[in-house]
Amino acid sequence: MPVAKKIASFIGRSSFIREMFEAGARLKAEFGAENVYDFSLGNPDLEPPADFKTVLRELIDDPTRGRHGYMPNSGWPDVRAAVADYATTEYGPKFSADDIIMTVGAGGALNVALKTILDPGDEVIVPRPYFVEYDFYLDNHNGVIKRADTNPDFTLDLDAIAAQATAKTRGVLINSPNNPTGVVYSEDDLRGLSGLLADLSRKNGRPVYLISDEPYRKIVYDGVQVPSVFMHYPYVLCGTSYSKDLSLAGERIGYLAVHPEIPDKALVLGGLVLNNRILGYVNAPGLMQRAVARLQGRCVDVGIYKKRRDRFVQGLREAGYELTVPQGAFYLFPRSPIEDDVAFVRLLQKENILAVPGSGFAGPGYFRLIYCVDEAVIEKSLPGFKRAMEAAKA
Amino acid sequence: MPVAKKIASFIGRSSFIREMFEAGARLKAEFGAENVYDFSLGNPDLEPPADFKTVLRELIDDPTRGRHGYMPNSGWPDVRAAVADYATTEYGPKFSADDIIMTVGAGGALNVALKTILDPGDEVIVPRPYFVEYDFYLDNHNGVIKRADTNPDFTLDLDAIAAQATAKTRGVLINSPNNPTGVVYSEDDLRGLSGLLADLSRKNGRPVYLISDEPYRKIVYDGVQVPSVFMHYPYVLCGTSYSKDLSLAGERIGYLAVHPEIPDKALVLGGLVLNNRILGYVNAPGLMQRAVARLQGRCVDVGIYKKRRDRFVQGLREAGYELTVPQGAFYLFPRSPIEDDVAFVRLLQKENILAVPGSGFAGPGYFRLIYCVDEAVIEKSLPGFKRAMEAAKA
Repeated sequence: MPVAKKIASFIGRSSFIREMFEAGARLKAEFGAENVYDFSLGNPDLEPPADFKTVLRELIDDPTRGRHGYMPNSGWPDVRAAVADYATTEYGPKFSADDIIMTVGAGGALNVALKTILDPGDEVIVPRPYFVEYDFYLDNHNGVIKRADTNPDFTLDLDAIAAQATAKTRGVLINSPNNPTGVVYSEDDLRGLSGLLADLSRKNGRPVYLISDEPYRKIVYDGVQVPSVFMHYPYVLCGTSYSKDLSLAGERIGYLAVHPEIPDKALVLGGLVLNNRILGYVNAPGLMQRAVARLQGRCVDVGIYKKRRDRFVQGLREAGYELTVPQGAFYLFPRSPIEDDVAFVRLLQKENILAVPGSGFAGPGYFRLIYCVDEAVIEKSLPGFKRAMEAAKA
Repeated sequence: MPVAKKIASFIGRSSFIREMFEAGARLKAEFGAENVYDFSLGNPDLEPPADFKTVLRELIDDPTRGRHGYMPNSGWPDVRAAVADYATTEYGPKFSADDIIMTVGAGGALNVALKTILDPGDEVIVPRPYFVEYDFYLDNHNGVIKRADTNPDFTLDLDAIAAQATAKTRGVLINSPNNPTGVVYSEDDLRGLSGLLADLSRKNGRPVYLISDEPYRKIVYDGVQVPSVFMHYPYVLCGTSYSKDLSLAGERIGYLAVHPEIPDKALVLGGLVLNNRILGYVNAPGLMQRAVARLQGRCVDVGIYKKRRDRFVQGLREAGYELTVPQGAFYLFPRSPIEDDVAFVRLLQKENILAVPGSGFAGPGYFRLIYCVDEAVIEKSLPGFKRAMEAAKA
């Protein structure tokens, strides 16, 4: 075998998502891309805010030497100071530059966090459905994923989380606004979860971390506020990126914010910075660090996503689909009209519609649709959704 | 314990290099940075070629939508095609875009390669001295490092490598031009090594990879050519970056080139692309991909490094140091005048000179000096080197 056995099996496991991609490529080749309704990949289609280019031009004209060279593994100190100032206003506690580690996107932040805290076999509880990469991220660091059910509206079920707790629990990983459901966890739920983690830390005799993945924090609708995970508990590691709020997904820029009052802080920060280095990231891309430092708090026009969401929800409901209206992110997670969500996604393909089965997110019986596409695509796809619903019921 | 036991021990292990950094910071605070001769960190001080800025400006003015969004995990197809064309002229075999995976620097490339091929406990042989990160990179993927001695002039000792081979050997990892020695491995040695790996693959009943780390490929002197690792053997994975040739170390842009004739290519490429994704890199930074695509084959003025090398070698020899003249990279690796290289590095600190002990590179009895600093720093430091030599002999 030319590759590791595990990797060969991973390639096999991920094959049904690949199957969707391949089906999509076939459909696009046969019918033309404009006649295929691709709701499969969460790649923000809005351009970055206009002054992103202005900022980049200014940075390029900056004659300071060494701007493209190595900096501390945690990132440029002035960038981290700017992010810390913003994090203070966004999250509540007073952050300093040391509490911020610039990372290769939120994916980098999560891997750095997990490698830092996980002894082999340690467990992390994840409410489901969840972003499919978490399985891999935990496996990367010899961790074990424990899935906890959520309520029917996808809000946190604290009892279900408590039921997954063991002596090996090292963390709970949450993602709010959530991919794939768009749900935002409430202040009450975060307080309850924090209490549960505090109790479990005492019982286990070692810290149980709240790991928060927040790349959609600014993509929220209807005046919803995403509560801060930092308000009730000190063992908090929060990873995020500028992939969605600034539409910079391909530039791989994000950060990890560490609770300013975390105990044994020097050791935790030392581990995180070491791991940012030794995982091969070394540091977050330098130019993009400087760019985002000047765009703190900025966001693309969320109103555009909201308009699409509203039209998509309305159209799907008219076609007979059952779904929770998402409060954030740019995903819908409707119930599959038939139990087998993979089979239903194949029915959608017959209408040239590409979606991802909920099974891909440990949420069987549902399917995921993105709405980071032009409203016209949504509009044109609706008759196909109607026909697929009829076919499913036939 | 708030961090994983292994990570706590890693922080402990790396503490003597940290000690050097802390000593350096103390010295700079006490005597002023201009009076401290810092030869510890291989951070290229030359600015990127002037047209790097021109290229960046053009890319920013490009009105094409989606330039900062996700692309295939292996990188932009047109970028990979440009790199493949260049790799064909540089390495010999005919590369196609599929054989190139854009990565987060050479560190990203090596981690992707190792995760793809290593089953738990698999061994990788590394000639020593070697870049200290290899220990961590192998450990990241549950691999085991096996150190093979080199000849007194740091060239490959094929017998020493063969002596480390077992049924669990999965690869040999080489780095030429080498960090820390600057040695370039010869065509004959690469041919011999390839033969050894072919024999071992047959004996073990599975491929044993030649993994090549080549970020210094273009930083060579005196007309030296770095032979291609792709000429004698198909199981070759070659990682590199634009960190040194374009002085873009902080931008984290590099690539992994896979031998075009590697058997089971689809499986190997599938594993590599999957791992680029699931290790949290997702893809190499998008803007920098486009920038380096337009600067293929370009390099900073190596003549400047050569001038510094020559002055440093001459000055150190005059002060009584014994060293091999490096053919590439920007490191000197002189013999420590006393057996204990850590103690000698402390003697150098008393002269406000910062160096890294060879022990940090599995090369005890030596110490490493970088020469990616201004020639004036080298010049001013030489009396201190002389006094340290006298102190060591006293």
